[in-house]
Amino acid sequence: MTQYKINQKDVFFILKEQLNYGSLCSLTRYESLTEKTLDLLVSEAMRFAKTAVAPLSEVGEEKGVSHEKGQVTCPSEFREVFRQCGADGWTAAARDTDYGGQGFPHMMRIVINDFMYGACQSFNMAPSLTHGAAHLIESFGAEALKQAFVPRMYDGTFSGTMCLTEPEAGSNLAATQTTAYPDGDHYRIKGNKIFISWGDHDIADNIVHLILARTEGAPEGVRGISLFVVPKYRLDENGRPGEFNDVVCTGIEEKLGLHASPTAALAFGSKDDCVGYLCGEPNRGLAHMFQMMNSARINTGVSGMTLGSNAYQHALEYTRQRIQGADVAKRKEGYVPIIDHPDVRRMLLWMKASVDGMRSMIYTAAFWAELAEEGTAEETRQHYQALTDFMTPIVKAYCSDTGFRVCETAMQCLGGYGYCRDYPIEQFLRDAKIMSLYEGTNGIQAIDLMGRKMRINDGAMFNAFCREIASFFEQNRDHEGLGKYVRDLENAYARVREMAEEMRGRNESDRLQWGSYSYPALLCFAEIVMVWRLLDMARIAYERAGKKGRKNDFFRGKVAQATFYADLTLPHTIERSKTCMREGREIVEIPDAAF
Amino acid sequence: MTQYKINQKDVFFILKEQLNYGSLCSLTRYESLTEKTLDLLVSEAMRFAKTAVAPLSEVGEEKGVSHEKGQVTCPSEFREVFRQCGADGWTAAARDTDYGGQGFPHMMRIVINDFMYGACQSFNMAPSLTHGAAHLIESFGAEALKQAFVPRMYDGTFSGTMCLTEPEAGSNLAATQTTAYPDGDHYRIKGNKIFISWGDHDIADNIVHLILARTEGAPEGVRGISLFVVPKYRLDENGRPGEFNDVVCTGIEEKLGLHASPTAALAFGSKDDCVGYLCGEPNRGLAHMFQMMNSARINTGVSGMTLGSNAYQHALEYTRQRIQGADVAKRKEGYVPIIDHPDVRRMLLWMKASVDGMRSMIYTAAFWAELAEEGTAEETRQHYQALTDFMTPIVKAYCSDTGFRVCETAMQCLGGYGYCRDYPIEQFLRDAKIMSLYEGTNGIQAIDLMGRKMRINDGAMFNAFCREIASFFEQNRDHEGLGKYVRDLENAYARVREMAEEMRGRNESDRLQWGSYSYPALLCFAEIVMVWRLLDMARIAYERAGKKGRKNDFFRGKVAQATFYADLTLPHTIERSKTCMREGREIVEIPDAAF
Repeated sequence: MTQYKINQKDVFFILKEQLNYGSLCSLTRYESLTEKTLDLLVSEAMRFAKTAVAPLSEVGEEKGVSHEKGQVTCPSEFREVFRQCGADGWTAAARDTDYGGQGFPHMMRIVINDFMYGACQSFNMAPSLTHGAAHLIESFGAEALKQAFVPRMYDGTFSGTMCLTEPEAGSNLAATQTTAYPDGDHYRIKGNKIFISWGDHDIADNIVHLILARTEGAPEGVRGISLFVVPKYRLDENGRPGEFNDVVCTGIEEKLGLHASPTAALAFGSKDDCVGYLCGEPNRGLAHMFQMMNSARINTGVSGMTLGSNAYQHALEYTRQRIQGADVAKRKEGYVPIIDHPDVRRMLLWMKASVDGMRSMIYTAAFWAELAEEGTAEETRQHYQALTDFMTPIVKAYCSDTGFRVCETAMQCLGGYGYCRDYPIEQFLRDAKIMSLYEGTNGIQAIDLMGRKMRINDGAMFNAFCREIASFFEQNRDHEGLGKYVRDLENAYARVREMAEEMRGRNESDRLQWGSYSYPALLCFAEIVMVWRLLDMARIAYERAGKKGRKNDFFRGKVAQATFYADLTLPHTIERSKTCMREGREIVEIPDAAF
Repeated sequence: MTQYKINQKDVFFILKEQLNYGSLCSLTRYESLTEKTLDLLVSEAMRFAKTAVAPLSEVGEEKGVSHEKGQVTCPSEFREVFRQCGADGWTAAARDTDYGGQGFPHMMRIVINDFMYGACQSFNMAPSLTHGAAHLIESFGAEALKQAFVPRMYDGTFSGTMCLTEPEAGSNLAATQTTAYPDGDHYRIKGNKIFISWGDHDIADNIVHLILARTEGAPEGVRGISLFVVPKYRLDENGRPGEFNDVVCTGIEEKLGLHASPTAALAFGSKDDCVGYLCGEPNRGLAHMFQMMNSARINTGVSGMTLGSNAYQHALEYTRQRIQGADVAKRKEGYVPIIDHPDVRRMLLWMKASVDGMRSMIYTAAFWAELAEEGTAEETRQHYQALTDFMTPIVKAYCSDTGFRVCETAMQCLGGYGYCRDYPIEQFLRDAKIMSLYEGTNGIQAIDLMGRKMRINDGAMFNAFCREIASFFEQNRDHEGLGKYVRDLENAYARVREMAEEMRGRNESDRLQWGSYSYPALLCFAEIVMVWRLLDMARIAYERAGKKGRKNDFFRGKVAQATFYADLTLPHTIERSKTCMREGREIVEIPDAAF
């Protein structure tokens, strides 16, 4: 019995009907691909997730990880699947073929992660971080560094990490204290990092840390941080892991969830014998790292969404099978499956809309990121890059919080059974909770969106978003059946836009009040995107939804979730945007002692 | 280091300033009491919670419970405190002195539970269930039954349980299958119960189960269920636990939380040797049981609130101590405590208002329940009984969901550390999650409120609520500083009332649509109560809040939380009440196959 459930039709509807992802095959980078190949990749990725990755979820939860004498031990099953994930091409499916990638569209990495994280969150952090770290070396490293590490990371021989956080530098990277002293063609690294996911383990032959550190005399703050590659074992003359590189795991965290993902504290160079290699330009480390951080932020949203998706599918199955209580409208004799109870149905429909809306939001953002990278015209690339930058904090914060909320709602559908370990939902709930916390807390995402993302380039990112959604309004506001909802969305968006302009002013004039409402402001944008994506799917499904017959139930669902969700959400979006503009200053003015 | 934190001033402000609980001493039952005695009781209860109960929280989480050969073993520390809790009079503080109670006001049971559940949720379920079970025997049992069991339950020698759920009768008690055959002066019990909290353990000398079962030939459905007292060990001629009574624990649940509270599956009479004693009238078992169920429902709300309260206090302390990042408005040099960051402050203020509002809601409901029981005039008692009945599902559902939300928000304040077991918040979050599920899921509470509670006695309960809140509007709508907010509340309540009337009609004419929005309707009422209670406290604090000086910060906090919460909440209450009246029928009409 697998714990992984996904509605394949929903996935393909977004990819094919909504995004027409086959159109990517006309781009230069993908001229050898066809839509059929992409479809096959998606199906195969789902199969791999279900058969190879999903069994790890229970195994990992049961066996967990342990730390003894500086070495972390993981369930042995993880090692095999990690290797296979690389060898079969999943880890680097979207990378160029030069260093071992498969050359598929960048967005396929997100789609594959949807299934892999959904199947086992703890496990997929390993290949996903490995991909991100190797991609960073591929993007910024010297040729020798690339040759030495990237192919072996992509093929599942080595793993990778992202080392940012220090005890006194959590969200505030300016406080980074790890140092790097030049020593010939390399550096000596010294410092402590904490909260390093997959920071130590035994599922790969080597661990390649991508680490932020300061060189001597570097400027203070974030402009004095450089990026280094620090392997756990130095490579010998044959490129194989050799001598120990003085990277010691000093402990792993005991956590609410992610029990099979070791969260390590690492001591680099405590015996002054840790070698690191500069990656990219000196003092540009944080700028380089943002490639990996942005990708990790999107992946955090993916994780929240897909854990919610899995939880929803489990709840759905349960409510179809569990017989309890009589029909409230006496439509049937005797006791009925609880999916017949209206309040259970309310929860199911809300979860369905939330999951489908988030998946569409994420895939759409991934499609935009694809065009930002591979679009033919410079102007196209700029527009979609601006959109991608705007969407990143929204995807991260909204999908992490809402994915958790979906898990909570799914548990509610099971009653007391939902609280029991006999069902996997309690694990999904625990695993999902990290998403609002790591890769920049959701509060930090909100500051990023309402600050940097509204401001830089004269608001180019915000303007790109406005342009994109305006064209949806233009094309659909007179839709025969859905026009009313599109106009409701347009009206709500007008209010959100007003709020955003107001807040842009306050960001200059009254930063405390601005910061007090940055998170609700992010939520407004997220809700707008959700309704937009759901209505866009409903628009496509509309004609077939009008026809009777079981074949068309799928399309009826797309329309029902959109109108339900729009009606339930938009009035609150409008009220929330008013909240963001309020004059009341309680948050700023309440004395500390009054809490 | 204790894991239990509570703001004592907040507690006394509600009891003394808002409710004037000293006035209870003028009631006949309490003529020997003074307000000072009550104050002392409250302080002593807090002290007992902090010193005796709170240490069990970590102990229980670490050691957990185990089940072997039909016997559950608990951490030995629990036995001692359970006995002490009884012997020191905490278990039966509010019961009459006839069978060992202390004769304090009924509402003190709720106040004491606030501290005890807050200090250790898993533990306090034992004395709380014991109290409920014994009180049930005291209310409905024959004299011999009372003499045999009640004093020993109140003094901590025996414990008690509530046995309702069966594998096929979870929320639907009509499906109860456990049977009782008359056999002389007693009955033979046979059947299986599941999800029985503290159903088996070794912390007391005997376990007294209060169990629902059917006698032969009883009517079908809930009107054929009787209540029985079934001890684990029969009493010998000296009233001491003797022969085993064929109540076997067949397993305990592995759960998300409450790891120190054994959730047992029990087999009664599998060897046909289980004796039970009828308690109360035959076939009136469910009606009798409602005394314990209603009390358990309120306690569930208390648990949600107090876990949230504890989580908030921990988050508050953390945000005061944790230094991270620069001040967004450059008010201070260098890095600042994160309580200075506006988004963190937003979370703190929301938690503060939520916890204080919930505590006031619960204490107010307990005060009303007191007057329902002990009020001098029949009319008074009726009015307050109606109010109590109306409030029960609101307290249960709202405080369970919101308590969980507060725990989630508290965790967010700690960033990644919140996810780690080094801090207790992740345990509070796990423990709190059960509250929306047991004692009737929150969906069932909503059906109770919007169905039975709106309907019976021509809507007497709803009318009592309307009368009570109307008098608040009348007295405060012209308040110099808060009148605007009171009028906002009055306006919002007018819309909620419209919605309630509309839904009352639909409950007859369109039960599916009614059921689809019963939960959001409950939420509307809860939000109204929250704002009402917060404004009522603000009204009392208002004058001193206007004065400067640290002494008055406490009062400033009461006003700030009320205006902030009212502005943030009421617009959504209004929109939600419109949602409840909507015509869209997606929930009802979406085909099952479309999910």
